[in-house]
Amino acid sequence: MRIDSFVDVLQTELTTTQYGQHPPELYDPIRYIMSLGGKRLRPLLTLMGTYLFTDDWEKAVRPALAVEVFHNFTLMHDDIMDQAPLRRGHLTVHEKWNPNTAILSGDVMLVNAFELMLNVEAGALKTVMTRFSRTAAEVCEGQQLDMNFETRWDVTETEYIDMIRLKTSVLLGFALELGGLIAGADAETTQLLYDAGVNVGIGFQLKDDLLDVYGDPAKFGKQVGGDIIANKKTFLLIEALEKGQGPLRSELDDWLRRTDFDKAEKVRAVTSIYDQLNIRQLTEQRIDDYFARGFDCFARIDADPARKAVLLDFVQQLIGRES
Amino acid sequence: MRIDSFVDVLQTELTTTQYGQHPPELYDPIRYIMSLGGKRLRPLLTLMGTYLFTDDWEKAVRPALAVEVFHNFTLMHDDIMDQAPLRRGHLTVHEKWNPNTAILSGDVMLVNAFELMLNVEAGALKTVMTRFSRTAAEVCEGQQLDMNFETRWDVTETEYIDMIRLKTSVLLGFALELGGLIAGADAETTQLLYDAGVNVGIGFQLKDDLLDVYGDPAKFGKQVGGDIIANKKTFLLIEALEKGQGPLRSELDDWLRRTDFDKAEKVRAVTSIYDQLNIRQLTEQRIDDYFARGFDCFARIDADPARKAVLLDFVQQLIGRES
Repeated sequence: MRIDSFVDVLQTELTTTQYGQHPPELYDPIRYIMSLGGKRLRPLLTLMGTYLFTDDWEKAVRPALAVEVFHNFTLMHDDIMDQAPLRRGHLTVHEKWNPNTAILSGDVMLVNAFELMLNVEAGALKTVMTRFSRTAAEVCEGQQLDMNFETRWDVTETEYIDMIRLKTSVLLGFALELGGLIAGADAETTQLLYDAGVNVGIGFQLKDDLLDVYGDPAKFGKQVGGDIIANKKTFLLIEALEKGQGPLRSELDDWLRRTDFDKAEKVRAVTSIYDQLNIRQLTEQRIDDYFARGFDCFARIDADPARKAVLLDFVQQLIGRES
Repeated sequence: MRIDSFVDVLQTELTTTQYGQHPPELYDPIRYIMSLGGKRLRPLLTLMGTYLFTDDWEKAVRPALAVEVFHNFTLMHDDIMDQAPLRRGHLTVHEKWNPNTAILSGDVMLVNAFELMLNVEAGALKTVMTRFSRTAAEVCEGQQLDMNFETRWDVTETEYIDMIRLKTSVLLGFALELGGLIAGADAETTQLLYDAGVNVGIGFQLKDDLLDVYGDPAKFGKQVGGDIIANKKTFLLIEALEKGQGPLRSELDDWLRRTDFDKAEKVRAVTSIYDQLNIRQLTEQRIDDYFARGFDCFARIDADPARKAVLLDFVQQLIGRES
């Protein structure tokens, strides 16, 4: 089995699913955001999670799509809250239409996600829906924490990890767990799938933070240093604020306060502060730790090695990315 | 059985339910809007719908609360879209906190509603969740249609009825249907419950429109003529726009265009146009029709007459209200 098989079936499902017709003002933005692409990471994890235990992985396609619809709902609403102009290089829904449309289309996407998720066998329904709704609530909690952190300068590493766990990682964990639930895997196994996804997910997010500063400009898709320019509270900045003392901390505080600055100079200066505090090594160590925990969970899952290899190769490829 | 028993148990559930704790910015607005009161019409309909067929109506309490949480989610998000300053005499969530909080708290309320709705027996779960998600999507469709109508002057009676059916009536229908589903009633009966709720619900909404113009100022809670002052596209205005011709239509158009006017004079003038077009009689006839259709559905439900009387008395009381 090659990853392309999963991608192809998912792509067909993505292009044939009807989210609703009338009124078009409500459903056009859904078709729009779902067509903007993305790696389709979450539904692919669900399909591979099911394939670990059964050849009949296609029965996971609609629930897998539910996860992707939910993820895109969060993007639509987060973009309103963050006043983001662009999403994947295209206008965000609230910019292309208006905020009210983005609110209401997002609402109906969340409903659609729950509706699509009902396409599991009767025996798995209660657990799938319970776990999905719990995860969905946690993702909202993570987004609220992220917004709270914008105005706080004393966020601890523990708080930050908890925020990214909720905002981004629990959905990756659930995507994998869902695959196992659909395949009828036992509770210990689905827990391992969840834990694997959560830990790898935290690693991904920390790596995002790291690449923004230390990524190869030739490979990194975005502007290196974008988070530094925007004072974004990343793992690196939180560590620097926790560890920096004396003149170094004053210098950091000064850069964070300045409203008028040369962007390249700020990126160079803050990166130098990170360097002096060994933030890069610390972050890389945390990333390695979370990936290792994730792979330890994968290792403890009892499944056919050839099937596991498909999933592990996919995850390894994601871990190795530099953009 | 008296209505007070249902109210008491529901009230206990409302005050003891935990929507979530952390972060408080996310959950405080939920506790706030849920504490603002209201008639709790929808969950009471669910409880009475279950009581029609079984003494064990308390098993419907959590799903009934799910309907109320969903209803309040729609209020929280509609208030943002309508830029409403007040809800039930108190600040709306987006005014008391901010729009982002109202978006995100609303999102987690919608999730909570789905989570609460899972508290039904396994045999009813798939149907309940399917019907709930379909209804939830329809309510969003109704809100979008309502917003679309704000900028249209050619809305037909059929379109208007369809809008209010989606925006407000399908949830009343579902609330009753849900009661039947939880009690294990057959498909024909749950369909009758749904149809009864939808038809009575349309009657309620048309009566709201009527009372705004022809209500007794001593009994009507709000300012009589408020919809006329605001050019709100009610059933009465839509009928007047459909029926008015010649000088009468010109006079109506003129009042709709004016930005500077004496409120009492506008209310008198537009009411006089309605009178000349017999809009009151037409509206009263439509209201009677929808109520009659609803009661016809109730009549065809095979249930113990004493139990039915509890529900019918409650609905009759709602129909008779003048505020």
